[in-house]
Amino acid sequence: MLKSSLTTGLSCVPRGRGQLGQESAGIVTSNGASPPTYTAHKGMGLVSSAFPPDALLKLRYGNLGICHTRYSTTGISELQNCQPFVVDTLHGKIAVAHNGELINAHALRKKVMRHGVGLSTSSDSELITQLLALTPPMEERDAPDWVARIKNLMTETPTSYSLLVMFKDVIYAVRDPYGNRPLCIGRIVPVSKLHSSGAEEEDTEGWVVSSESCSFQSIGAKYYREVLPGEIVQISKHGVKSLSVVPRPEGDLPAFCIFEYVYFARPDSIFEGQMVYTVRQRCGRQLAIEAPTDADVVSTVPESATPAALGYAQQSGLPYIEVLCKNRYVGRTFIQPNTRLRQLGVAKKFGALTDNFAGKRVVLIDDSIVRGNTISPIIKLLKDAGATEVHIRVASPPIRHPCYMGINIPTKEELIANKPEFQDIAGYIGAASVQYLTVEGLVSAVQEGISSLQQKDKSSKRVGHCTACLTGKYPVELEW
Amino acid sequence: MLKSSLTTGLSCVPRGRGQLGQESAGIVTSNGASPPTYTAHKGMGLVSSAFPPDALLKLRYGNLGICHTRYSTTGISELQNCQPFVVDTLHGKIAVAHNGELINAHALRKKVMRHGVGLSTSSDSELITQLLALTPPMEERDAPDWVARIKNLMTETPTSYSLLVMFKDVIYAVRDPYGNRPLCIGRIVPVSKLHSSGAEEEDTEGWVVSSESCSFQSIGAKYYREVLPGEIVQISKHGVKSLSVVPRPEGDLPAFCIFEYVYFARPDSIFEGQMVYTVRQRCGRQLAIEAPTDADVVSTVPESATPAALGYAQQSGLPYIEVLCKNRYVGRTFIQPNTRLRQLGVAKKFGALTDNFAGKRVVLIDDSIVRGNTISPIIKLLKDAGATEVHIRVASPPIRHPCYMGINIPTKEELIANKPEFQDIAGYIGAASVQYLTVEGLVSAVQEGISSLQQKDKSSKRVGHCTACLTGKYPVELEW
Amino acid sequence: MLKSSLTTGLSCVPRGRGQLGQESAGIVTSNGASPPTYTAHKGMGLVSSAFPPDALLKLRYGNLGICHTRYSTTGISELQNCQPFVVDTLHGKIAVAHNGELINAHALRKKVMRHGVGLSTSSDSELITQLLALTPPMEERDAPDWVARIKNLMTETPTSYSLLVMFKDVIYAVRDPYGNRPLCIGRIVPVSKLHSSGAEEEDTEGWVVSSESCSFQSIGAKYYREVLPGEIVQISKHGVKSLSVVPRPEGDLPAFCIFEYVYFARPDSIFEGQMVYTVRQRCGRQLAIEAPTDADVVSTVPESATPAALGYAQQSGLPYIEVLCKNRYVGRTFIQPNTRLRQLGVAKKFGALTDNFAGKRVVLIDDSIVRGNTISPIIKLLKDAGATEVHIRVASPPIRHPCYMGINIPTKEELIANKPEFQDIAGYIGAASVQYLTVEGLVSAVQEGISSLQQKDKSSKRVGHCTACLTGKYPVELEW
Amino acid sequence: MLKSSLTTGLSCVPRGRGQLGQESAGIVTSNGASPPTYTAHKGMGLVSSAFPPDALLKLRYGNLGICHTRYSTTGISELQNCQPFVVDTLHGKIAVAHNGELINAHALRKKVMRHGVGLSTSSDSELITQLLALTPPMEERDAPDWVARIKNLMTETPTSYSLLVMFKDVIYAVRDPYGNRPLCIGRIVPVSKLHSSGAEEEDTEGWVVSSESCSFQSIGAKYYREVLPGEIVQISKHGVKSLSVVPRPEGDLPAFCIFEYVYFARPDSIFEGQMVYTVRQRCGRQLAIEAPTDADVVSTVPESATPAALGYAQQSGLPYIEVLCKNRYVGRTFIQPNTRLRQLGVAKKFGALTDNFAGKRVVLIDDSIVRGNTISPIIKLLKDAGATEVHIRVASPPIRHPCYMGINIPTKEELIANKPEFQDIAGYIGAASVQYLTVEGLVSAVQEGISSLQQKDKSSKRVGHCTACLTGKYPVELEW
Repeated sequence: MLKSSLTTGLSCVPRGRGQLGQESAGIVTSNGASPPTYTAHKGMGLVSSAFPPDALLKLRYGNLGICHTRYSTTGISELQNCQPFVVDTLHGKIAVAHNGELINAHALRKKVMRHGVGLSTSSDSELITQLLALTPPMEERDAPDWVARIKNLMTETPTSYSLLVMFKDVIYAVRDPYGNRPLCIGRIVPVSKLHSSGAEEEDTEGWVVSSESCSFQSIGAKYYREVLPGEIVQISKHGVKSLSVVPRPEGDLPAFCIFEYVYFARPDSIFEGQMVYTVRQRCGRQLAIEAPTDADVVSTVPESATPAALGYAQQSGLPYIEVLCKNRYVGRTFIQPNTRLRQLGVAKKFGALTDNFAGKRVVLIDDSIVRGNTISPIIKLLKDAGATEVHIRVASPPIRHPCYMGINIPTKEELIANKPEFQDIAGYIGAASVQYLTVEGLVSAVQEGISSLQQKDKSSKRVGHCTACLTGKYPVELEW
Repeated sequence: MLKSSLTTGLSCVPRGRGQLGQESAGIVTSNGASPPTYTAHKGMGLVSSAFPPDALLKLRYGNLGICHTRYSTTGISELQNCQPFVVDTLHGKIAVAHNGELINAHALRKKVMRHGVGLSTSSDSELITQLLALTPPMEERDAPDWVARIKNLMTETPTSYSLLVMFKDVIYAVRDPYGNRPLCIGRIVPVSKLHSSGAEEEDTEGWVVSSESCSFQSIGAKYYREVLPGEIVQISKHGVKSLSVVPRPEGDLPAFCIFEYVYFARPDSIFEGQMVYTVRQRCGRQLAIEAPTDADVVSTVPESATPAALGYAQQSGLPYIEVLCKNRYVGRTFIQPNTRLRQLGVAKKFGALTDNFAGKRVVLIDDSIVRGNTISPIIKLLKDAGATEVHIRVASPPIRHPCYMGINIPTKEELIANKPEFQDIAGYIGAASVQYLTVEGLVSAVQEGISSLQQKDKSSKRVGHCTACLTGKYPVELEW
Repeated sequence: MLKSSLTTGLSCVPRGRGQLGQESAGIVTSNGASPPTYTAHKGMGLVSSAFPPDALLKLRYGNLGICHTRYSTTGISELQNCQPFVVDTLHGKIAVAHNGELINAHALRKKVMRHGVGLSTSSDSELITQLLALTPPMEERDAPDWVARIKNLMTETPTSYSLLVMFKDVIYAVRDPYGNRPLCIGRIVPVSKLHSSGAEEEDTEGWVVSSESCSFQSIGAKYYREVLPGEIVQISKHGVKSLSVVPRPEGDLPAFCIFEYVYFARPDSIFEGQMVYTVRQRCGRQLAIEAPTDADVVSTVPESATPAALGYAQQSGLPYIEVLCKNRYVGRTFIQPNTRLRQLGVAKKFGALTDNFAGKRVVLIDDSIVRGNTISPIIKLLKDAGATEVHIRVASPPIRHPCYMGINIPTKEELIANKPEFQDIAGYIGAASVQYLTVEGLVSAVQEGISSLQQKDKSSKRVGHCTACLTGKYPVELEW
Repeated sequence: MLKSSLTTGLSCVPRGRGQLGQESAGIVTSNGASPPTYTAHKGMGLVSSAFPPDALLKLRYGNLGICHTRYSTTGISELQNCQPFVVDTLHGKIAVAHNGELINAHALRKKVMRHGVGLSTSSDSELITQLLALTPPMEERDAPDWVARIKNLMTETPTSYSLLVMFKDVIYAVRDPYGNRPLCIGRIVPVSKLHSSGAEEEDTEGWVVSSESCSFQSIGAKYYREVLPGEIVQISKHGVKSLSVVPRPEGDLPAFCIFEYVYFARPDSIFEGQMVYTVRQRCGRQLAIEAPTDADVVSTVPESATPAALGYAQQSGLPYIEVLCKNRYVGRTFIQPNTRLRQLGVAKKFGALTDNFAGKRVVLIDDSIVRGNTISPIIKLLKDAGATEVHIRVASPPIRHPCYMGINIPTKEELIANKPEFQDIAGYIGAASVQYLTVEGLVSAVQEGISSLQQKDKSSKRVGHCTACLTGKYPVELEW
């Protein structure tokens, strides 16, 4: 998208199994001149509709830029809340894109407004941008020290954010001290150099930054490395340079969101040195150890649970088969008001591959059960088509708590694990049995790959993950 | 649009003959409760497309609100620049809608940014809103004195603005000390009371504020009065109350934009106590005195020049006829790159009523000639259809200077009056002769109606108008 | 639209005051080669939306073509019913465009279906096309004699149709023997020859055929002549050639639709040698003679009644003024379910030019009153704004009967003239008085111009018009 | 879609791996009354966009109907060519929906046009409809014998068609004597009766007919049986009744399109008693026998080749893994003009699951290679990500010949198997080796399941399939 001969940009991929469409997208480019010219476009919907050809045309000037795709968490979904957020300051425009949710946003808003600043949106991105502009006071004669301002911001808010800050011809890539949200760097190497190795200081061809590494391949870039928890990385025509690592409070572990592995990320993304697919497969193996089943075949709810299902099959020795084919022409399954319509909705979305399982006992692997509305008609579909028993094995623990760090989870009341029906979940959804992966099992499946990795790379000394939605243990104290 | 049983709102009408479609529209409503809930919607294009039914639905809560339709002057046309501008302050949200252009915007932006405020748009509305929030410093314990803040703003910027400022359950309607932009108040009286008279203090049914009075009729309101130059009017559940009149510097005259009469306003609007149509008719009469023609018939370029043409016919004694009919199915005449295409474009838009003028000498009245691109093919059309001579009489003086007060005028170079061709304008556009109304003639045609009016209403003691685009004399010194 | 160096095409203009938007449009072009290639495009809505740029691109091959814009009369409004209708025959494709309604369509459909032809639409155009293909039987060895087939068709159905039939490199322009629907020929002369005179046989540059001559000017063509009642005109690379005139039954007069003058046609169109505007102005004069008024001023419901109003003013000696200005930003006035909403709808569409008529007695001219829903709120608007009396004068007689010849008139029950309220129409609509033009007055206003014309052109010996919707006298016996 | 308490309808599913979106869809319903009312809607694009809610609303009257989704083969893709085709005859309307392509369409068109019928489209559906209406001659006094007319049609054209003919309250489901196109019957049983068994004559709740059985599940219907080659089945309020089986010429085998198994059909559809998925899995097993590979892992080009890949893995004993994940947010891969853009297009559509195969030799199964444009960048993607060797195994033979029976295959020149590059196909696409399934292998994989089936069901005595696109042997002689 950004055919740069020089520097960098951010590209966020649409995320989350259940989030069948992002809400808005924005891009801001800078020509890097002095003074720079910024060009911006924002739109609602998927990138393809948010960026019509004429919008892209106007963005092609400039060799650095940041962009953002958004699925609303706090801010109401309106174009106005679209990122990146750009403001004009005494020393020119800064643009900020942000992934996450500031845990102390309320107190910070008060602080900014006390200075007489009116906030025009409810988004954290504007708040971050105004905080960067506000402190210390700006003066006309001295160029602002953006790195000091970013560090200052990081001392005011511990989590949860991955940031891109663009000013003139520099982009700063920042991850909060707990590393709650992902952020990684990729490198665009010209075709002729694709197989050569080059050090960071050498003449480079372009850099990209993204929440997920899977987006690199689609623009011809290669995964380079993660931004570390608390790290500020500068990207400019001089290449990539690590400027600083803001530490966590003594004793605190990193808290990368474990649900990125379970649910949100694309399987080909890499976090902490391991491929998400591999982690999911390991969850399936662990699930087979924790919850073995007396059955004939193992299968998947396509497509997100397939790695876990293959892992379960390998570990258990049961044959892996397909029980459902997906109808590519059905878009979103809207939430239907009653059981019969939900049944028809699922029957439209999935076709039963009857002959593969008729007369057999099926273990069906799902990656998570949030509300419990979809799995029930799938089970009925399989039983109507001849499955003698359907056992559900879930490759993650039940979600029980809200997330205050940027993940859109249903309210506590809507979560199936908090409902009375959960006591007899198998009966409620019509399964022969239901079993979940334990929190310990999940954590070990995730961290096993990192340990093996740490032998090679000593950069992150200790390992830790945020499991707040499963355990209620938040990485920092909540203050409201 | 705002079925209020209590207070008020602003409604701007799309304006300007040449401005065949506004660019964006926004509306913000408040439920007036404590703390209030604001609801907002903004959209691009005409009101009808900017406000789909579901947008209107969400706005129906609340009994006061402000809205804005916009044809960009300074700010680039993007949804982000849409008004009203709403910001959250320590004491709740304020919403501001603005018509005009701050003559010292550049210096004011610097001032705000020096405080560390980042400005997210290039619009004056955001600037005004942040200025109101900024000075004096806001404190949590004391409610802000908005009237003092508005007065403070008015001392910092002399012109050009008409404002609506909404806070909780009050709207302030403000006009700059020079009265450069129009603003007037209308009253919604319930059907049963339509013919009763009521004092300002009495129990009222609803108030509306608008740039142009013509918008009142379409929502069932009656014209009440103008906001005076420099006046701050408060509209609340207690009705309409004049709070203050901020004076002009000693010796300065009011400077209401004379082109509102000539060109922008709808003919049924009322300014300074007189109907725009009547002023235009008077301009036509004055033109007949200044520039009589030896011809057979008088006609108009439909529809905006019709009042002037009828005035010219009455004064000159020549018969008024129609020479062109408009094709309602042709939308905008896009600017065509060459003479032949311009000719076909005009031929598609206007049909020649041949039999009305074949063999005759025609005086064709136009209200203004800005670029000179349209009148030329019209003259050719008439001559091809049999007119023996076509004399052009323009019911306003030539435009020669830029406007820095909110009116979108082509650059100096594009104005026909500044081109070498203007020396032989008749030859250039193919007319038998061309004559313009004088500046003195225009001013007297405008002020004649006010003088007669002043006998009844002594409120504005002296009369003056901004003729900067015609004379280069700006009401205040320009500072950049 | 059809930049032909050689031959011709049809262009229908959207028609009718009340028909605020055509429903569909189609165009078919032929490259005239042997065998020819036809290219077609049809779309719903106005021409501008029915023909996106890529559709026009594919049509540019070929130097002759026919097109059609449609406001449904009999056929349901679906794309399938769009004209021109093209069918493939043993000898290649023919394309037919049709304006009007076959008075004996029902019997003709039966006839065609008895031959085993299935009819895929309810449109007369398909019926005409299949009739042309069917009789006499087609043979592979002999080229079909299309002129004989057209004559044969004309003996089977007397009225109402104007037709364009395209086959390979020839277009036949046909008008039914009664001349009920209009059809005229225009000539595209290259710019350099615009003022030279050329005989029909000479080297020509292009020909166009249209229902209304007003469409010629917009494509740079000049009015040439009407197709006569019953005439078949051939248009080809050899120019325009009259092939035959099929006669009416002995004693029958021509029956050109008088409502084309009153209501449907654009004022700059020419029928029977006279401009529609002039006829409407004459109707206004006649109305002033038949229905004089004791009043102060004459005005119009803009814009269609303006010629009649000017005629009334000239004849009566009363001054002509404007009382209403139109809001160009309001599209269609939808039929509103109650009086209050109708009032607001009209108040949105028209602004009252109060100062022009306050305290005066107004004669308001309308061109016709069909349902009576619009005039009533206009009268109220004027009276609220200060008119002391509003007298309605209608420049055509009341419509009382259905049209079976292609004009879309409300059902008999919906026509105000057939309702009980018509007895006190003035009271019903709130007018001081209401008077209509008489049928005799209308006919004489129409035919007066033709008589004077006949001195020059002896081609149509006798004069007659269809007044069926006013009198119930249909030009031919109705058979169902 | 058709909530019928009584009879039936047709529902075609969008088909074909490469056909990522149908072009148009139409539906016609009949209320079954005497005379019946038909309601129709047709639209372009996917069913969801072709049928907006208001269109569905108008279709809900009636308890039988036929519909059609279309991917153009012969007729140009315009709304006019949309099926079902409805024509009015002397005895009322018939509606026809058609899947396939008449092998002698050209001669039949001539025949119809010789009768004087003009054909308004290039579609076979109109041709079929007019043929049904034409012979024998229709008379007003006698109701037409539609079954005789259908039989008559079947003697005039041997293949390829599956038809639905609706007349008043009856639908005839027809398959050509060679059974080239699929057609099967499903039954809607009320929820309460879902597990009861019922004979054909009994009281039934509803019947549906479809090209593919997979569509039944999504509307709550169960697979009932196939329509046999040459069979005419009547569906009415009396249920399903087999009326006749029109035989093939002595000695000819059935010729069901073998590519329905390979490529077009959804894997959960049932043809000739066997599930398509099972046949594809068998093709994979057969391929492993015919073309074994010395490699480490087996994988699939998701998703259509997955059953074959699983079959190959089971037969070969190599482990099945996933090498690619699909990006759900990328729609269609447009054909890109050069290698670099094709590479990026594939990289956007598929993510490489690097850790699963880095350092390994991969056997990649594809279901067919038509043009060879997609497989090449996929191989490059895998090798760049670390695969040491990529062996391609194709689960069907090379396509070499055009299809004249309704399947849209690229021209002979575009088929990779007919290009010189095919001599070194592995080198051309960058694979370590390439091997295809043999024709004999494919036929035996298909027919093996039918043989086993024939033990139970003796209805189709002999087995045969159309392999024309692979072998050039067409089921009937081609006449042009």
